[in-house]
Amino acid sequence: MRTVYWDYDRQTVKMIDQRKLPFEFIVAEFDDYREVARAIREMYVRGAPAIGATAAFGMALAARQSNAQTFLLMQDDLKNAGKTLETARPTAVNLSWAVARQLDVASKDEGSSVQDIRDSLLVEAQQIADDDVALNRRMGFNGAEQIAGGDTILHHCNTGALATVDWGTALGVVFAAHEQGKKIHVLVDETRPRLQGARLTAWELQQRGISFDLIADNAAGHFMRTGQVDIVLVGSDRTAANGDVANKIGTYKLAVVARENGIPFYPVVPTSTVDLSLANGDLIPIEERSQEEVLNAIDRPIAPAGITARNPAFDVTPHRYVTGIVTESGIVYPPFVKNLRKAVEQSRQGAWRDGPAL
Amino acid sequence: MRTVYWDYDRQTVKMIDQRKLPFEFIVAEFDDYREVARAIREMYVRGAPAIGATAAFGMALAARQSNAQTFLLMQDDLKNAGKTLETARPTAVNLSWAVARQLDVASKDEGSSVQDIRDSLLVEAQQIADDDVALNRRMGFNGAEQIAGGDTILHHCNTGALATVDWGTALGVVFAAHEQGKKIHVLVDETRPRLQGARLTAWELQQRGISFDLIADNAAGHFMRTGQVDIVLVGSDRTAANGDVANKIGTYKLAVVARENGIPFYPVVPTSTVDLSLANGDLIPIEERSQEEVLNAIDRPIAPAGITARNPAFDVTPHRYVTGIVTESGIVYPPFVKNLRKAVEQSRQGAWRDGPAL
Repeated sequence: MRTVYWDYDRQTVKMIDQRKLPFEFIVAEFDDYREVARAIREMYVRGAPAIGATAAFGMALAARQSNAQTFLLMQDDLKNAGKTLETARPTAVNLSWAVARQLDVASKDEGSSVQDIRDSLLVEAQQIADDDVALNRRMGFNGAEQIAGGDTILHHCNTGALATVDWGTALGVVFAAHEQGKKIHVLVDETRPRLQGARLTAWELQQRGISFDLIADNAAGHFMRTGQVDIVLVGSDRTAANGDVANKIGTYKLAVVARENGIPFYPVVPTSTVDLSLANGDLIPIEERSQEEVLNAIDRPIAPAGITARNPAFDVTPHRYVTGIVTESGIVYPPFVKNLRKAVEQSRQGAWRDGPAL
Repeated sequence: MRTVYWDYDRQTVKMIDQRKLPFEFIVAEFDDYREVARAIREMYVRGAPAIGATAAFGMALAARQSNAQTFLLMQDDLKNAGKTLETARPTAVNLSWAVARQLDVASKDEGSSVQDIRDSLLVEAQQIADDDVALNRRMGFNGAEQIAGGDTILHHCNTGALATVDWGTALGVVFAAHEQGKKIHVLVDETRPRLQGARLTAWELQQRGISFDLIADNAAGHFMRTGQVDIVLVGSDRTAANGDVANKIGTYKLAVVARENGIPFYPVVPTSTVDLSLANGDLIPIEERSQEEVLNAIDRPIAPAGITARNPAFDVTPHRYVTGIVTESGIVYPPFVKNLRKAVEQSRQGAWRDGPAL
C-alpha cells in the first residue's frame, strides 16, 4: 500500500494519517487541494519525497476543482494552488519541485483544453509517484553496496516507505541489504520531538522482520564511540549544490560524532531533493515548528506548564562531514559541487532507469 | 527544602519523589535501609551527590535497625547494609564513597557502644548533607567566573538542587551567575529517556525566574553550530583520574560538537565524584536501565508493542573534549591527571571552606 495515492473511483487524494501510527491505521481522504496543503503542514504525510508526490496530486486536484473555462484562467488557478501547496512547509525542496513540474505540464501547450490540463496533471502526478517508487528502489540497491553482512546501521528519523510514496530512501538501503540476504541490525534513533523513529521506522522494520533496537537519540554517541555502529544512514529534506545536507533535527550531531569515530556517514538523497540553486546549506530555510511538539511526547505533557520551548525541525550538516551521497544515479563522492550536479543531470536524462532489473 | 533529609522527630529518611515532578510534589518516607536502596534504584532520588547523601542516611538508618549488641556484630550489619546500598546503581561513585565513609566512622573506635555508632553515623550523614550544600555553593561561584552577562548556557539532564542535597552542580553555576546579576539564558536539553531536563531542570529554573527554553536533545547541535551557545555545562556521575567524565547519556555528543564549534565545555564536578582509582573513563561501569524507559515517555507508549530497546543511562566523554573541570577547589585545567589529584587533596584538607563568604 502506498503512503499517498489517487483514488480513481472517487477522484480524491488519499493518504495514511501518519500522526496516528503505530497506534491507529487511518487513511484520510481529500477532495480540496487546500486541505491537502493543511495535511502536509500538519504532517499527516511527511518526508521530502512523499510530500513532493502529495503536492503533485494536490495540483491535479486543484485542476479538477477549478471552474476555469479557458487555458489562461486555468493557469491562474493553478498558480494560486501551487503557492498554497509549496508554502505548506519551507525546508523540503520537493514541494516547489513538484509544483513547478505540474505548472510546466499545465502550460506546455496553449492549445490544451481545461479538461486536457486536468488529465495531464493527473498523469504527471501518477508518474511522479510511480517514478518515486522505482527510483527509490534503484537508490536503495546503490546504497546497499556499502552494507556488509553483520553490519549495524544507525538510522535517524523515518526515511522508509512512509517518507516516500513507497520503499524509502535511507531505510530503502536497509531494505535492499535485507533483501540481498545480508544479516544486519539497525539502531533506531527515536527522533524527538515527533518520534518518527520510534513510531514509524520501528513499525516498518517490525513489519519486515528486520532486527533492530530502539534507542534514545542521546544514546547514539555512546554506541558510535564504543564501536557498535558500522555506518550511519540518513535522509535529506534539501541538499545544497555543495553537498551541505538539511535533514531532521539531530542529524548534524550524528554526522560530527560519526566523523570523530571514523564511521561512514551517508545521506540517501533522491536528486529531486537536491537544490542546485543554493550554493550552500546556510541558505536553506529551517522550519521552526510549534513549541507544543517539544512540551509533549505525542499527547503526554512532559514539562511544567507555562514554560517556553524552541523547536527547529531541521539542521544543516556541512558537506565536510559527509562521506558520500547515495542517489538514484549512484553514490556521489567529493568534490560534491561538481559530482552532485552531474548526478542530477544524469537522473534528468533518465539514466537510473537503465540499470539492471531489481 | 532539601532533596533528602533526616526527620529527627520520626527517625526516618525523607526524600522528594522526583519521579512525579513536576506534576505532583510528594515527599516519601523510609524507615528501612533496603527501601532506601530501592528508592535509589527506582530513582525517587537521582544525581551523584544526592544519592551519596541518601546512602549516608541509609547507613544511619541501618545502624538504627540493627539489633547487634556488640561493636563487631554492628560492623557486620553495617557492611551488609553498605553492600545493598552501594550496589543500588553502578555508575555514580558517590554511593561507595558515602558507604566507605560511614564504615570508617563506624569502625574508628573499638570502644564505641552500638548506640555511639548509631549516633556517629547520623552525625556523619548530616555532615555529608550539610557539606554538600556549602560545597556546591562554593563550586557554583567558582564556575560562575566563566559566565558573562548575555551568555546562553546549554545544559544537559538535571544538576540542580534536586540532583544534590541542595543548590546543585552545573545548574548551581547558573544559579550563582544569576545571583551575581548576570543576564543569562539557558537552553535546557529535555534529556531523554527520563526527561530530567524537561521535568526537573525546567521546574527549578521556572521557580527561580531564570530565562530558559526547553529543547529536544536533537536540537542542541543546531544551536551550537549557528552561534547561539556560549558555554556548555554538565554534571558528572563519575570522573576518572585522567579527566574522562561519565555523565548522563547524550553528554558525549554535546562535548564533541562543542569542541567542533569552539564552545567551552565544562563538567561541574564535586571531588566526591572523582574516582582516582580509575585510570580512565572506559573503566567506569555504565548502567543499562530498563527498555521501558525508551519505549515510553513517562507513562505514554511511543513505539509499537513488542519491540526491543537499548538503554545505556550514561556515556563517557574522553578528557580531550573537556575544557576544564569545575570543582569546589577551583577550576581544574589540563593536565587533568596531575591537577585533578591536587584538587581532590585540597578538598580533603577542607581548603574550599576557607574561601570568601558567599
